[in-house]
Amino acid sequence: MSVNSFGRVFRFTSWGESHGPAIGAIVDGCPPGLALSEGDIQRWLDLRRPGTSGLVSQRSEPDRVRILSGVYEGRTTGTPISLMIDNVDARPKDYAGIGPRPGHADRAYEAKYGLRDPRGGGRASARETAARVAAGAVARLVIPEVAISARIAEVGGETDGWEGALERARSEGSSLGAIVECVAAGVPAGWGAPVYAKLDAELAAAVMSIPAVKGVEIGAGFAAARRRGEDNADPALAGGITGGIATGDPIVLRAAFKPTSSIAALGVGGRHDPCVGLRGAAVVEAMVALVLADHKLLHRGQCGERSEG
Amino acid sequence: MSVNSFGRVFRFTSWGESHGPAIGAIVDGCPPGLALSEGDIQRWLDLRRPGTSGLVSQRSEPDRVRILSGVYEGRTTGTPISLMIDNVDARPKDYAGIGPRPGHADRAYEAKYGLRDPRGGGRASARETAARVAAGAVARLVIPEVAISARIAEVGGETDGWEGALERARSEGSSLGAIVECVAAGVPAGWGAPVYAKLDAELAAAVMSIPAVKGVEIGAGFAAARRRGEDNADPALAGGITGGIATGDPIVLRAAFKPTSSIAALGVGGRHDPCVGLRGAAVVEAMVALVLADHKLLHRGQCGERSEG
Amino acid sequence: MSVNSFGRVFRFTSWGESHGPAIGAIVDGCPPGLALSEGDIQRWLDLRRPGTSGLVSQRSEPDRVRILSGVYEGRTTGTPISLMIDNVDARPKDYAGIGPRPGHADRAYEAKYGLRDPRGGGRASARETAARVAAGAVARLVIPEVAISARIAEVGGETDGWEGALERARSEGSSLGAIVECVAAGVPAGWGAPVYAKLDAELAAAVMSIPAVKGVEIGAGFAAARRRGEDNADPALAGGITGGIATGDPIVLRAAFKPTSSIAALGVGGRHDPCVGLRGAAVVEAMVALVLADHKLLHRGQCGERSEG
Amino acid sequence: MSVNSFGRVFRFTSWGESHGPAIGAIVDGCPPGLALSEGDIQRWLDLRRPGTSGLVSQRSEPDRVRILSGVYEGRTTGTPISLMIDNVDARPKDYAGIGPRPGHADRAYEAKYGLRDPRGGGRASARETAARVAAGAVARLVIPEVAISARIAEVGGETDGWEGALERARSEGSSLGAIVECVAAGVPAGWGAPVYAKLDAELAAAVMSIPAVKGVEIGAGFAAARRRGEDNADPALAGGITGGIATGDPIVLRAAFKPTSSIAALGVGGRHDPCVGLRGAAVVEAMVALVLADHKLLHRGQCGERSEG
Repeated sequence: MSVNSFGRVFRFTSWGESHGPAIGAIVDGCPPGLALSEGDIQRWLDLRRPGTSGLVSQRSEPDRVRILSGVYEGRTTGTPISLMIDNVDARPKDYAGIGPRPGHADRAYEAKYGLRDPRGGGRASARETAARVAAGAVARLVIPEVAISARIAEVGGETDGWEGALERARSEGSSLGAIVECVAAGVPAGWGAPVYAKLDAELAAAVMSIPAVKGVEIGAGFAAARRRGEDNADPALAGGITGGIATGDPIVLRAAFKPTSSIAALGVGGRHDPCVGLRGAAVVEAMVALVLADHKLLHRGQCGERSEG
Repeated sequence: MSVNSFGRVFRFTSWGESHGPAIGAIVDGCPPGLALSEGDIQRWLDLRRPGTSGLVSQRSEPDRVRILSGVYEGRTTGTPISLMIDNVDARPKDYAGIGPRPGHADRAYEAKYGLRDPRGGGRASARETAARVAAGAVARLVIPEVAISARIAEVGGETDGWEGALERARSEGSSLGAIVECVAAGVPAGWGAPVYAKLDAELAAAVMSIPAVKGVEIGAGFAAARRRGEDNADPALAGGITGGIATGDPIVLRAAFKPTSSIAALGVGGRHDPCVGLRGAAVVEAMVALVLADHKLLHRGQCGERSEG
Repeated sequence: MSVNSFGRVFRFTSWGESHGPAIGAIVDGCPPGLALSEGDIQRWLDLRRPGTSGLVSQRSEPDRVRILSGVYEGRTTGTPISLMIDNVDARPKDYAGIGPRPGHADRAYEAKYGLRDPRGGGRASARETAARVAAGAVARLVIPEVAISARIAEVGGETDGWEGALERARSEGSSLGAIVECVAAGVPAGWGAPVYAKLDAELAAAVMSIPAVKGVEIGAGFAAARRRGEDNADPALAGGITGGIATGDPIVLRAAFKPTSSIAALGVGGRHDPCVGLRGAAVVEAMVALVLADHKLLHRGQCGERSEG
Repeated sequence: MSVNSFGRVFRFTSWGESHGPAIGAIVDGCPPGLALSEGDIQRWLDLRRPGTSGLVSQRSEPDRVRILSGVYEGRTTGTPISLMIDNVDARPKDYAGIGPRPGHADRAYEAKYGLRDPRGGGRASARETAARVAAGAVARLVIPEVAISARIAEVGGETDGWEGALERARSEGSSLGAIVECVAAGVPAGWGAPVYAKLDAELAAAVMSIPAVKGVEIGAGFAAARRRGEDNADPALAGGITGGIATGDPIVLRAAFKPTSSIAALGVGGRHDPCVGLRGAAVVEAMVALVLADHKLLHRGQCGERSEG
């Protein structure tokens, strides 16, 4: 129920500010006996990491994860798994003296809390997403039957050939939005729940909670709203979920990332991605993995192993 | 945490099947001392009610709500408010002997539970949304500072002049999708929470949990994904939420309703709406009210009255 | 998380006031496919029912339970089970004009909510426990491997021969306290959880939440505090739980019920039990069943069926 | 809802094993703007710390806490507060090759998880309580109106003059149980909640979750069970709570600590306290603070500031 936690049976909590000493995540409720090493998590963090091409932020973070608890002799013990990532290239001074930045959460944090950590967005920074990716790597181990894969479907409205447009935007001190599409194949029919914990509702929340995401759709999504019933009857258009419960077909969702407002054109300093959607794909995958791991355990709890066969 | 509940401090749980004896909702955590009568709830139910025009289902339900607890001499007492609506025009026999209907959750329920209540979709029926509207009516009383208003923005891809198209679809035994836009004005800056309980994430879950909704967007939504940073810098495009926290501007969201699959063209009997989006607007309003009421109380709990001024 | 709910995966919510039209409970997360009839619940309610002997309250309630949802053709469907019990012999007028009663929660409710339902204690009345017993009857079906049995261990400090003392107290307009001992046999080793959701911690909360209970102990309990380590080493003294997890031995707990303050000696009218502990045994059993059902499902969710063998 | 978390609005999660690299806690939902330094936490940890006298375990842990997030320029920001304490004197090798120890949770953990971290009890160790004390120190800042004070009421059945008996037990390789009494003065009338989140129920769970605690009582507790109604009518015997809600009187509870089984007489090696109750007093205080902080915020959320005056 805490606002910085996510999940029910398989649950994670994240902490840490962009320019504090470290960020981290606690994964609770993980099944015992799973093989888990720091390397299993590191490989996913490396995919998300900034500084790996000219098209993402030049902040240089090695993003080395350490496992501080919950694993003994290479196996999960069933107790909380504490993951920590040191902030190495934090430059809090870059943000000294700058006021609330347009398009950021700075003013909203001030309105809520009466004060804020001004250093690089603090808790609202995209840096927090490294904790999600780390926790998501653990979640993947819980659902080996599922293959999750996200890709950039559009950048700045282009479905392909967008590299040039993005390079141009970057060189002009601007940024572009993007649409990420994620497919989860192998989800057994029956995972999910009716009414308020619907699988699609929880995926929507999970993905909408990623910084810069402004829209989520499942299956045919907004296009379905423009169709007649008989044109929308193909089960594939359901996106793998009906009534909040997985059908056994691949689950398909799309997330709309807005262009970052941290751009020269808006007079905002610091180091930023010209298209946060690029790194967002790894985060979408992680959030989908976290939701599915939780629903696998929730389903097994209520209904037993029986119906998963 | 139960899968048929929603909310944290202000929380509701719904129960009931489409063709059982009744449906209902329990509202827990309601502030004490609020004036509440059955009439305050009834007026919202009347707006959602089927059978009021040729364009919605002909099931004839008076939808009379009764308050069974939590109110004394016209005031909420702070204890659980139990609301019940009898199912009067249930016709379980209409569904006797019919197998899983295409486009419905019937098969998914079977996969999950190993059995299902076949009568009109059981728990997955749109009838469950009457409980949401009833609970939402209580939520509205908790947030008198907020005005929530939803409207049909599109039907079958048409932004206006869609009545003819809908009448045509109905007469042809078909159905149309719709987009509902909802605006919540007067939400004080500061409501909401960062990271996993973001106001936009919880609104997305709330709205995506409504039957037939396949997409949700906040502010500029998917259009933002097709823009450059400087073109998306107008604060109005944020839809009233940044970093998961209300900015004080009106909150704007849109929900995509798919066309119902319960149509003659697909060989599905029973009584149904040619466009579930029409009645969906009242449900979207209710879900938005429920999320905002919960966040008002959550914010007041953590941060006190101070920052709401 | 709602304050009138209880449990995690198997969860119930209760509602209703002592002298309102009805009371009820929603059981959510129940495994599907279990045989459940109103009679399965009624038999436990009948054991708890007032008016069955001279030693309990003379309020005459048939306590007829109705199942309003979640069951189809005699089997649970996995969706919320709504249970309702009408208040037949409510006499709200008996309480008209009386102020806060000494020893009751009346003043505390006023302090919290600024108002209260004065009719017989409203929500704080022992009548609410009928909802617990009804929900507990469902919980028992979830844990057929467990036999739960509570007995009166002491009344007014006497371990046996207390009937005379109780009759004397009743005739003098007084009341006696009691100690109820409950044993749950057959709980598989492994149910429970470490640290904050310990099985003993959750049993303690469940039992302490029963009206009039002022103390809870597990195994040797307070007697253990007066022993040397080697004298407390017998595993039976652990009461079936170590580290918050069931050992496979019978779980043993005791609850201390205070004497009711609703007595003539204190000038409090209405109809009351001379010893609430007598009917409390059925409620203790129900709460133990609810905790164990939840932990069975939680354990199966995290750890699978494997370790239950 | 995660099993290693505690609380609703003010919520903490702990992690870490006795002989891993570190232990820690995340405090979420803390009000913003509170002055908080590492020293504010350290002073309470120093009171709990082992190695400070001959009567507690000789494990030498400096217990230096670090604040890794949630505080900026000496004030809480409202975001998660991550606290970490390095394990300095961990000696995992002391536990190499030893099987499950009698009287410990070792076997229960194995039954649950199929494996366990054998080093000093892992997660079940009393070392985890340092995380509780650290989180409790933050909770105290949330409730400055409340004074919490726990004392040793009994050791080995002696209410005073127990130092000699304890020294004797220690020198003989044995241990003694203890009763800790805790008083919370200044709790405003109205904190708490009815039915399942009763203040006494949640205090019972919080205290029963402390390692070695086997019983909890509020106010007159078990003694009340042996009384007549009129002898129990003094409001002071209610222990400051009626109907689950604070009355404004001091809250009084007692916890029964069993004698530790880690004693030479039982052939268990490692370093241990002859009476865990001695250090338990600090942990009881911390748990009481955590429950009260959560209920303050929960009450303020539902009922506003109004009734706290």
